[in-house]
Amino acid sequence: MARVSRRARATRIPEVVVDRLPLYARALAILQTEGQEVVSSAELGERLRVTPAQIRKDLSYFGRFGKQGSGYNVERLLEQLRLILGLDQQWRMALVGVGKLGRAILEYGGFAPQGFVITQAFDANQEVVGQRMGDIIVRHVNELEESLARDPVDIGVVAVPASAAQKVIDALVRCGIKAILTYAPIPAQAPHDVEQRRVDPMIQLQRMTFRLKELKPPPKPPS
Amino acid sequence: MARVSRRARATRIPEVVVDRLPLYARALAILQTEGQEVVSSAELGERLRVTPAQIRKDLSYFGRFGKQGSGYNVERLLEQLRLILGLDQQWRMALVGVGKLGRAILEYGGFAPQGFVITQAFDANQEVVGQRMGDIIVRHVNELEESLARDPVDIGVVAVPASAAQKVIDALVRCGIKAILTYAPIPAQAPHDVEQRRVDPMIQLQRMTFRLKELKPPPKPPS
Repeated sequence: MARVSRRARATRIPEVVVDRLPLYARALAILQTEGQEVVSSAELGERLRVTPAQIRKDLSYFGRFGKQGSGYNVERLLEQLRLILGLDQQWRMALVGVGKLGRAILEYGGFAPQGFVITQAFDANQEVVGQRMGDIIVRHVNELEESLARDPVDIGVVAVPASAAQKVIDALVRCGIKAILTYAPIPAQAPHDVEQRRVDPMIQLQRMTFRLKELKPPPKPPS
Repeated sequence: MARVSRRARATRIPEVVVDRLPLYARALAILQTEGQEVVSSAELGERLRVTPAQIRKDLSYFGRFGKQGSGYNVERLLEQLRLILGLDQQWRMALVGVGKLGRAILEYGGFAPQGFVITQAFDANQEVVGQRMGDIIVRHVNELEESLARDPVDIGVVAVPASAAQKVIDALVRCGIKAILTYAPIPAQAPHDVEQRRVDPMIQLQRMTFRLKELKPPPKPPS
């Protein structure tokens, strides 16, 4: 199989296609652990709730990955997807905000095995600054720019309260960070070349109750 | 202001509009904490990176909320949005999966103040079953259906490994749960009347490295 030309292709791929690639990679990784060597687009589609045609079309952006009728080689397709997504590399992340949520992020431990390593952590609270969390000593957020200039990272992870989020994101942007994962409850402004992705379970819950409340009798009004 | 008719209106609202409502509510809650009494669609839009026209159009689905040119009354609009979204109620949740991630969810403490209360927790690991977490004693996942029949919840929160997710979601569906927040790494099948929302920071990270890797020299191939 020809090696995928990264730079040439990446810019022409629709966002919705890129959105699905990490899910494909994940499903393939699970299949690999299960010892499966070949998978059809039908089976992959079944697992991911995507049509087989969609999978074939998405993958066709990156070259030819399977032989008609014989399915995909799990290991090879996974390897290619990891290359396409940049998952063959290690990514360094700076966490800003070491409150309850930030601490849970640091202690979660699910990022590093996937190549996403938090190498620095910052907080504004003097009681947290100086504390050791695993291999990291929390620094004051005022030192963020100096610290990232000395020891650059690829991705910023923001877990500060809404009121502090914009200032923190501005500082990360000044440091040249181009990718920000934010747990802040309100979107913050960033230049167009900075990609911001949000993690927000509360919004997901609040989104569901809109329909859920129709199934439930309304609460009694105060009398 | 007329009380919003819930049931009559809810079914006609486009999903993309409902998606934005929790963000509006959150921005208004922040404005309220800041002591602001009136807000224009322009200012609200600025905070949320949405156009003022979009905000006015979204809110128009639910009735008339502001006077032309005088902006929205923050407290009243927030109250109405909370009613529309069902955030005036308390929602009971069952957590399935009390591993590292599930524990972080239980300990996070950000859900309950917003009316989302985890009242039951389940795990398959005998070492975790029987442990007390705050007010909750973790039960064996085999007792899930019996337990939810006795003591119903509104929402299921799934934090089990990919391989167990489908079985757990099937059980929640059998219990009549219509809303599931899942941290499982792979989408699971559920009937159309069950709303499933996913929280997945790893996918967000992997999604960003697709573009990020173009800014970074590729790693040296093994020689």
